[in-house]
Amino acid sequence: MLYVIGIGPGSQSMMTLEAIEAIRDADIIVGYKTYTHLVKALTTDKEVIKTGMCKEIERCQEALNLAVQGKKVALISSGDAGIYGMAGLILELVTKQKLDVEVKLIAGVTASTAAASLLGAPLMHDFCHISLSDLLTPWPVIEQRVIAAAQADFVICFYNPRSRGRADHLARAFDLMRPYTAASTPVGVVKAAGRKKQEKWLTTFGEMDFENVDMTSLVIVGNKTTYCQDGLMITPRGYVL
Amino acid sequence: MLYVIGIGPGSQSMMTLEAIEAIRDADIIVGYKTYTHLVKALTTDKEVIKTGMCKEIERCQEALNLAVQGKKVALISSGDAGIYGMAGLILELVTKQKLDVEVKLIAGVTASTAAASLLGAPLMHDFCHISLSDLLTPWPVIEQRVIAAAQADFVICFYNPRSRGRADHLARAFDLMRPYTAASTPVGVVKAAGRKKQEKWLTTFGEMDFENVDMTSLVIVGNKTTYCQDGLMITPRGYVL
Repeated sequence: MLYVIGIGPGSQSMMTLEAIEAIRDADIIVGYKTYTHLVKALTTDKEVIKTGMCKEIERCQEALNLAVQGKKVALISSGDAGIYGMAGLILELVTKQKLDVEVKLIAGVTASTAAASLLGAPLMHDFCHISLSDLLTPWPVIEQRVIAAAQADFVICFYNPRSRGRADHLARAFDLMRPYTAASTPVGVVKAAGRKKQEKWLTTFGEMDFENVDMTSLVIVGNKTTYCQDGLMITPRGYVL
Repeated sequence: MLYVIGIGPGSQSMMTLEAIEAIRDADIIVGYKTYTHLVKALTTDKEVIKTGMCKEIERCQEALNLAVQGKKVALISSGDAGIYGMAGLILELVTKQKLDVEVKLIAGVTASTAAASLLGAPLMHDFCHISLSDLLTPWPVIEQRVIAAAQADFVICFYNPRSRGRADHLARAFDLMRPYTAASTPVGVVKAAGRKKQEKWLTTFGEMDFENVDMTSLVIVGNKTTYCQDGLMITPRGYVL
């Protein structure tokens, strides 16, 4: 049995009951080391296999090999495992290799939702998720999506907005959006949501400072109706009050 | 104190710990009657105020009035309260009326994430959420977003895809996408995710049957790389296997 689990943004309180139960049921926990650390209160009596960054294929293959051997394995991703997490890769491997293993996918609270609940209610209208990592996606595809989303006035959640190796990606995305996005458009940033080092701040599209954004950050750019008041970022649904 | 709670798609197992704790802490539960029914195992000793559909402003105002009077109130939405739920409306009312009330927003597993975990891993690449209800959004705005999302090859999650009053909205959205979306593109539908009457099925863009889709359904249209195998809908992240 392989559980593929979204553990939510970080704190145990933001995990679902079934995620907690699946971790409790498992013999072995497999995950990127930062994430295994986030659930360590639940895994003191378990074997824990921690792997480094960029070892996704090896990590998934190891989890599958253990499950095929009859172990109960929990593969964990932060947020939701089906959103830029490990669920897709696991299913690709299972179907390609025709493995005889039961896989149970357990949904979690993804970063955009968690960040939004900390900022106010910026996702009350149509929105999209765009990852700014071009490790697996050609940059021109990302560019096309950023432009389309800005033109159609989606609220945009940027995942993987900026890393040391890709320091200018968020700034380049903002450059692409500038023809369609007013300088006054609210922008909210949440760093390390639900974790000890959590930070959040509101700014505007025109005054955005990219330097404080890193890979643990989630950046939400509002749409034409989004406003900030009393420290809250709000995208109205359209009710007449 | 007003807790604004996303209870997830329906089953208690898909609620977060903090959502369960907030409901337990509350004196009064306020919600649309279907949703209050979903959490009734947690609320046997509580006052429960159930309201009908399309009474969102009244429901939020009542919850706020009770909280201003010093009650601990839990206002519940299915999925995540910040995604087409009650969070935005509550914050609009609080800021406009300058109410002195503590509001705590509690994130939940939204319908797209829950549906995806039941279908496979369709949301592994950039995706967007579009509500096809034009009660609060002009239809031309929805049209523009549908076209933009299809052109830019986003995976698309349709919320509120079809109701008796808006029986042709999903079909109209598909018509708009047809120039950009191959007939073979996988489509997944999940109805009443996590509830007793849960159903799910996979089809293609070209063979879509709109008749079985209702307001409790979530429709996910894949992107150019999405495929179905062994009954699973998978959008590869881009790993080379």
